[in-house]
Amino acid sequence: MNTFGRNFKITTFGESHGKALGVVIDGCPARLELSEADVQPLLDRRRPGKSALESSRQEHDRIEILSGIFEGKTTGAPIAMIVRNEDVKSEDYAALRDVFRPGHGDITYYGKYGIRDHRGGGRSSGRETVARVAAGAVAMKYLAHEGISISGHVVEVHGRTLPQDIENEIRAAQAAGDSVGGIATITATGCPAGLGDPVFGKLDAQIACAMMGIGAVKGVEIGDGFAASKRFGSENNDPMTKDGFISNHAGGILGGISTGQEIVVRIAVKPTPSISKVQQTRDVYGNEVKIAITGRHDPCIVPRILPVAEAMLALVIFDCLLEQKRYQ
Amino acid sequence: MNTFGRNFKITTFGESHGKALGVVIDGCPARLELSEADVQPLLDRRRPGKSALESSRQEHDRIEILSGIFEGKTTGAPIAMIVRNEDVKSEDYAALRDVFRPGHGDITYYGKYGIRDHRGGGRSSGRETVARVAAGAVAMKYLAHEGISISGHVVEVHGRTLPQDIENEIRAAQAAGDSVGGIATITATGCPAGLGDPVFGKLDAQIACAMMGIGAVKGVEIGDGFAASKRFGSENNDPMTKDGFISNHAGGILGGISTGQEIVVRIAVKPTPSISKVQQTRDVYGNEVKIAITGRHDPCIVPRILPVAEAMLALVIFDCLLEQKRYQ
Amino acid sequence: MNTFGRNFKITTFGESHGKALGVVIDGCPARLELSEADVQPLLDRRRPGKSALESSRQEHDRIEILSGIFEGKTTGAPIAMIVRNEDVKSEDYAALRDVFRPGHGDITYYGKYGIRDHRGGGRSSGRETVARVAAGAVAMKYLAHEGISISGHVVEVHGRTLPQDIENEIRAAQAAGDSVGGIATITATGCPAGLGDPVFGKLDAQIACAMMGIGAVKGVEIGDGFAASKRFGSENNDPMTKDGFISNHAGGILGGISTGQEIVVRIAVKPTPSISKVQQTRDVYGNEVKIAITGRHDPCIVPRILPVAEAMLALVIFDCLLEQKRYQ
Amino acid sequence: MNTFGRNFKITTFGESHGKALGVVIDGCPARLELSEADVQPLLDRRRPGKSALESSRQEHDRIEILSGIFEGKTTGAPIAMIVRNEDVKSEDYAALRDVFRPGHGDITYYGKYGIRDHRGGGRSSGRETVARVAAGAVAMKYLAHEGISISGHVVEVHGRTLPQDIENEIRAAQAAGDSVGGIATITATGCPAGLGDPVFGKLDAQIACAMMGIGAVKGVEIGDGFAASKRFGSENNDPMTKDGFISNHAGGILGGISTGQEIVVRIAVKPTPSISKVQQTRDVYGNEVKIAITGRHDPCIVPRILPVAEAMLALVIFDCLLEQKRYQ
Repeated sequence: MNTFGRNFKITTFGESHGKALGVVIDGCPARLELSEADVQPLLDRRRPGKSALESSRQEHDRIEILSGIFEGKTTGAPIAMIVRNEDVKSEDYAALRDVFRPGHGDITYYGKYGIRDHRGGGRSSGRETVARVAAGAVAMKYLAHEGISISGHVVEVHGRTLPQDIENEIRAAQAAGDSVGGIATITATGCPAGLGDPVFGKLDAQIACAMMGIGAVKGVEIGDGFAASKRFGSENNDPMTKDGFISNHAGGILGGISTGQEIVVRIAVKPTPSISKVQQTRDVYGNEVKIAITGRHDPCIVPRILPVAEAMLALVIFDCLLEQKRYQ
Repeated sequence: MNTFGRNFKITTFGESHGKALGVVIDGCPARLELSEADVQPLLDRRRPGKSALESSRQEHDRIEILSGIFEGKTTGAPIAMIVRNEDVKSEDYAALRDVFRPGHGDITYYGKYGIRDHRGGGRSSGRETVARVAAGAVAMKYLAHEGISISGHVVEVHGRTLPQDIENEIRAAQAAGDSVGGIATITATGCPAGLGDPVFGKLDAQIACAMMGIGAVKGVEIGDGFAASKRFGSENNDPMTKDGFISNHAGGILGGISTGQEIVVRIAVKPTPSISKVQQTRDVYGNEVKIAITGRHDPCIVPRILPVAEAMLALVIFDCLLEQKRYQ
Repeated sequence: MNTFGRNFKITTFGESHGKALGVVIDGCPARLELSEADVQPLLDRRRPGKSALESSRQEHDRIEILSGIFEGKTTGAPIAMIVRNEDVKSEDYAALRDVFRPGHGDITYYGKYGIRDHRGGGRSSGRETVARVAAGAVAMKYLAHEGISISGHVVEVHGRTLPQDIENEIRAAQAAGDSVGGIATITATGCPAGLGDPVFGKLDAQIACAMMGIGAVKGVEIGDGFAASKRFGSENNDPMTKDGFISNHAGGILGGISTGQEIVVRIAVKPTPSISKVQQTRDVYGNEVKIAITGRHDPCIVPRILPVAEAMLALVIFDCLLEQKRYQ
Repeated sequence: MNTFGRNFKITTFGESHGKALGVVIDGCPARLELSEADVQPLLDRRRPGKSALESSRQEHDRIEILSGIFEGKTTGAPIAMIVRNEDVKSEDYAALRDVFRPGHGDITYYGKYGIRDHRGGGRSSGRETVARVAAGAVAMKYLAHEGISISGHVVEVHGRTLPQDIENEIRAAQAAGDSVGGIATITATGCPAGLGDPVFGKLDAQIACAMMGIGAVKGVEIGDGFAASKRFGSENNDPMTKDGFISNHAGGILGGISTGQEIVVRIAVKPTPSISKVQQTRDVYGNEVKIAITGRHDPCIVPRILPVAEAMLALVIFDCLLEQKRYQ
């Protein structure tokens, strides 16, 4: 299932080492100004190779809009966008052709489909998120018009919360041929009340689906999340005055519907599974093998997940905003 | 949106104090034995009023199957099931007609729809889950045929993990007119490898959506969840031998697809928002009011959420199982 | 697939001789007045047994609304409605248990599901349309608020177009133990321009799907339909002046989107397949048998299809109307 | 809505004079051989400019597969295919910028979206069907493996059925600056019994939706269609012996489910609305204008619709075939 959303529907395609990655947006309102210049900056932010702590893969990630725009404006027709892959070193992956990398979807894809594009992880690669970020950029542009802004932050890496400690942890892991995970917060401010749909389209359920659908995310919290489970009701409820809510333990969502407060999401990101340390695994023939993954990998994926998580939150909120128009 | 699932699709309806709650299942395979006797035991388990620690609302929750069965077997036609409401004391809620209870969806439903069935929370009531449990019972029956079993456990309440401590915490909260939250684990054993669908139908994303769609759930983890964010990649990856995986930090899902190991989910449940302690809130006219909720409420909702969370996990897994048949 | 619509979604259930027929409407706007009294008259119109030319099955078809209404108004929650079956003479069908009636779905249902509720056709019975008419009644009520009205007419039976001829044809067929088909026109007036969605959600495509999804319908035309295929472009195009279109060969739809003119649909209805004349067929064991269907059947189904076709057109148009709000 | 299908889902994009047309297929089974060579021949057949009776637009329509293939086989990942537009003479359309062509969606698109890509009809152009034919080619390849073949024929043009008459009619219309419509039959042989889904996913309803969703199609019949409405039940029912059905008035579908016989569909195609004869119309400012459409247009679109109608039928049948696997 490569389609996400009900109203602002995106369908993504493409593999890490295929010809191109892309997305088709169906349901974008008409008469909105849109060009490649609205999308490119977010792709640039997501792009690898910007620091020593990131994968050295060099991609320009040039977005090309193929359809849906006429004289600089959306027409209501589907917007197709593609990014051609350039720095494709498939030979780097030849050794991995028949081996299942631990912590990756290699074995499950192979089991499910009986065939696997092993080059860079194929469809399961993080590179697939280029398409999500491109679609998210479109959503964000229109959310901005509505006064809604999305932002994400790394709040913890390998258990550390101070920026200097975080950088040290990442460098140390890299030096050791290992990797580290962490936690990020993504928030949306300016959302109107009323977004989300009982009972199976709850805003928090849609957000959880969106976030857990990002590779490497293993946990999602709304508002105080797991911390709320340790409180009394009298502590956790958000009292109201005539001027609004006094607190926001709920993270901006009650009964699955936005309250108008800030929407607060936290995600747990596992350590990058690709590490150069030797690991125990098996190949497609059932043989046990040792593996040391050398390619180009981020020792910590949390910072690079931010633009993706922001894009997913933007997609969910814009979709709900369009849904909500039906009630007006 | 009151429909859940793509293949084994359920559509639920009904309010806490309306005539009935119910569900229509569309997509259930034909020629399976099914009767009310398969569903009733799970409703009985979910039913309130079984202990001093639970709401005293007395409901027999008698399931009636209206369609889809012929001579004791499913026919492939939709299966409609209803439970009539009986112990409906709407007068208990008269005082709440115009008041928004803190921690509830009262204010958001009212804001979204401009009308609100205040009686027992209407559609936003936990009573809505009767329909999910009924549908889940059908799914579980067929999962059992495939050797798949689902089970849930309370693992923590108000920060305590020992059973005696847990009971004490709940009693203390009840005595104080307050409530407590907690954490539950739900697992599925016997699942085949291959369930779940890249990239937006990942099994973990579907589970996160299902769990976060249960009222009062504020966090979801797959496998080690947030704990994984504090580890090295070398610790968190699950090594493989020719006999399978050595560990299961991933919780039985890699790349969004089941590995064949146990599927492990944890959910954070907030403390019941309905408490008899006085709280600050407002009414529909914008007046500030004090509220003490007297009705019939559970001081801790975690145990009663178990059958619901199990049902939701069963629905997701059975749906994926049917989806998977397409590849075979 | 027992769900129809994207915004005003209906899910129907029930069999001819089961406990009940019903429908769940998901997506009905809130704060609209609704009661059983809005639905009952349309069910009464659809009801059999009103004349000598119709099936003598006696059903009161009393609608009961189970959910989604609070103090006489819709709440945005799903509206479930059921009709209990009463005049269920299953014994009438005992002889048909293992025999496939020609022109019916008996053999295809059996082949698809390996099981078949033979009593009155089970799910494939025309009685299933009770649920559609009930849902259509709700749609029609709100369409009426928007100034949109739907109406259907029998325009031809067994090739005859004059009312007296039509009645004679039906009586003659009945007397001969046979049946006749015919043609009906269904129109919608007052529809705004802009309904329908390129390229796969065209209004005419949705209407064709809705109409061909009624049992016994074998052909659908929009506007001049097949007659248009015999014209020159210069004859068939509808010229425009500043005051609007001069003609309506297109039937109110251009490029899949409504023009604001009357929407005109024609459907071909086959002769009722249940006839008392002896027919050649086979049973589930592969034996050849002769069959004379005695039960209670309409010699011509066209008049009784009208309320169903009107309901389906109402459902499509109301769905598109809600869809369209997203663009405003 | 630019997505079609539930299992073999296609999403199309692109405009007549935009950069490219394309399609993303989601849900194609894995491990099937596929390359551009499987698709190109069908695009070539659909391509204009092959005879004096067709539009002289010159397009090579070179298909490029961007994703979903690994070493010549499908992987289960989405298959994106694009065709770049080449012979784009947008200046031909400058005169039509503000004028609504009679019989086209110009006025309805403009009314719906408030913006319109007037160049060649933009998204409403018949050129959009390139994407459908490409997707249909993939479906047809796998249908062929299952022994299912689809074929279409022109059976009538401007009321004439003899090939020589048909050619004369088209030439005469062309000479007069006019156009003619006609009727085509599309059949599928080799379909297994059991395809299609009661009650809203009936095979005939899906086919009607697919066919009426092709621009210029104004009528759809299954089997004998409108002719059946003029018969007695005893004539129209298809008797069965132990060896199968004796006739096929039903067109291979009973109760919305395939019987295993040939599936027979007829479509009515209106005369091409673009004619060089002077027509009365209006522009976007409400002024009345005369219009003579000079560009490159087919005097009869029926032959060029055949590959599109075949593609749509293939898409429906392949989708149902995948759906059906769930029951096995």
